[in-house]
Amino acid sequence: MSATVNRQFILKSRPLALPTTEEVPFIESPMPTAGEGELVVKNLYMSLDPAIRGWMGDEPNYIPPIPLGSPVWCTAIGRVVDSGSPDFAVGDLVLGMHAWEDYTLTTAEAAGKIEDTMGLPLTNFLSVLGATGMTSYFGLLEVGGPQPGQTLLVSGAAGAVGSIVGQIGKIKGCRVIGLAGGKEKCDWLKNDCGFDEVIDYKAEADLEAAIREKCPDGVDIYWENVGGDMLDAVLMNLAERAHILFCGWIATYNDTEKRPGPKNLWQLLAKSAKMEGFVVKDYFHRAPEAIPVLGQWIGEGKIQFKEHVVDGLENALTAFHMLFDGSNTGKLIIKIAEDK
Amino acid sequence: MSATVNRQFILKSRPLALPTTEEVPFIESPMPTAGEGELVVKNLYMSLDPAIRGWMGDEPNYIPPIPLGSPVWCTAIGRVVDSGSPDFAVGDLVLGMHAWEDYTLTTAEAAGKIEDTMGLPLTNFLSVLGATGMTSYFGLLEVGGPQPGQTLLVSGAAGAVGSIVGQIGKIKGCRVIGLAGGKEKCDWLKNDCGFDEVIDYKAEADLEAAIREKCPDGVDIYWENVGGDMLDAVLMNLAERAHILFCGWIATYNDTEKRPGPKNLWQLLAKSAKMEGFVVKDYFHRAPEAIPVLGQWIGEGKIQFKEHVVDGLENALTAFHMLFDGSNTGKLIIKIAEDK
Repeated sequence: MSATVNRQFILKSRPLALPTTEEVPFIESPMPTAGEGELVVKNLYMSLDPAIRGWMGDEPNYIPPIPLGSPVWCTAIGRVVDSGSPDFAVGDLVLGMHAWEDYTLTTAEAAGKIEDTMGLPLTNFLSVLGATGMTSYFGLLEVGGPQPGQTLLVSGAAGAVGSIVGQIGKIKGCRVIGLAGGKEKCDWLKNDCGFDEVIDYKAEADLEAAIREKCPDGVDIYWENVGGDMLDAVLMNLAERAHILFCGWIATYNDTEKRPGPKNLWQLLAKSAKMEGFVVKDYFHRAPEAIPVLGQWIGEGKIQFKEHVVDGLENALTAFHMLFDGSNTGKLIIKIAEDK
Repeated sequence: MSATVNRQFILKSRPLALPTTEEVPFIESPMPTAGEGELVVKNLYMSLDPAIRGWMGDEPNYIPPIPLGSPVWCTAIGRVVDSGSPDFAVGDLVLGMHAWEDYTLTTAEAAGKIEDTMGLPLTNFLSVLGATGMTSYFGLLEVGGPQPGQTLLVSGAAGAVGSIVGQIGKIKGCRVIGLAGGKEKCDWLKNDCGFDEVIDYKAEADLEAAIREKCPDGVDIYWENVGGDMLDAVLMNLAERAHILFCGWIATYNDTEKRPGPKNLWQLLAKSAKMEGFVVKDYFHRAPEAIPVLGQWIGEGKIQFKEHVVDGLENALTAFHMLFDGSNTGKLIIKIAEDK
């Protein structure tokens, strides 16, 4: 790789299913240069999240769709290599909404400088201390407001967000049940993360009945990561005044047609329940509140988490597919360059 | 009719579509007698509501299904004709969950005595001062919490509940838009009820666009009475942090198969919005709070309402169908007997 080349995955057309190199080709572009107030950041690690699939489409969403021809967005951490701002020096470590590329042109305004890494690996700032951790922390505590003794059911429980949600639920005194696929994930949740019960949805013929068995008093809070049939099975198990925290719908992002909504949505009325959407970007400004708390819990061993680091920007698209077949084990991160 | 005969519509089997005399036959039973703590009430007026259709089915609901062989439930007002309780005398006026029948056997505990009718027609206690009014009042004010200047969109707006919701919204300073079917209903809402805008959904080829035109800043509060395609059109027009007040789904009650949910439910996440179910029975104990306020608004001419009284218990099932084709004009009430 020449220093003057910027490798990028760009969004050529909107994918209809799992994105391929047809829609998201890997190309070489000239390296950007920083104008006034701008920065060029050399990306070291980038975060791959299911939500990115939504941004590739053009359904109205909480952010505008990624424009065609633009590199695919993601959060990333890297070092400034060219600065047009007095507030940033070459070598500064920054976190922000970058893209699947070696070098991102951003602005001083949009860049979050990390002054102190607290001795933690840089990848942590894309996982438990990044958007993943903020989603779990503010979604459960602010939107959900869990009370001790409540039953918290978490879908995508072995995922980066779900596993942290469940562990925060335990810290807050909830009875926590996880929905995950496969024995290995279930064992990790129960043995390492302290979940009270785990349902291996791949092993259950009747998911509705399996949830009823593990949640005999009904589900007070449901962390909705998945959608599809799983949501329908949970809807039939709501407790009175249940609260569904709508974080995402990983089961539907690659649908080629818009699928119908849950057929049991009537249960919201039957149980005086509510389903509530939220988006982590509304809480980013409160990250300084959450980071020390999460840091302390990690230090005390109360929060376990896994990072799954794939080496090489060129492997990003293949790695992205893992999010949808569940084959990643932990927060999926791409290592783009060595920090040296 | 002999005095010793109790005419009843009973639920013989669960209807698959609009109920007919096959599933809900009209029969004659012996008149009940009151044991200790019990009352026999001669029904004068009864309320027909779309929700009754839900109670005829066996999908899990906010109350258990009407048992097969039982008369069909409804709220009704009548006079005690036989009392096994020292708290009730023959001739007392009572309101309660009765049934589609001449005489209802109830308990002193379940009967709500009306001491003072405030000079109002008895039918008002089944409409604006009954469950209809309580649904509108507590649903909008307690669950919704409308703020001045917010856009309130009401479906089933010319219905008994919807028309009162919209008028309370106006009293609270909202911009109120109604969805109703047909010019006559729309004219009434705009000219008599003071709605800011009305959408005749039967006259619109593109309902989503029609809502966008009338609600250019998006819908802050949506009163959900209808379901089906209408909900999907509204979901595409939510404002940030919109609140959907889920009162009922009149469009779906007679479906022969469970229909899929709204395909645009993702918009709850896209707009950090929530959809919340509620049931009026949770607010019945607070009726004494609402009745004087509603009474005052009626006295001041701030709330218009219509009652559609059909004469004769024997016509109840035919009249019930009107709720689903929208041919009733105002709160549907059956007059069972003269109050003499």
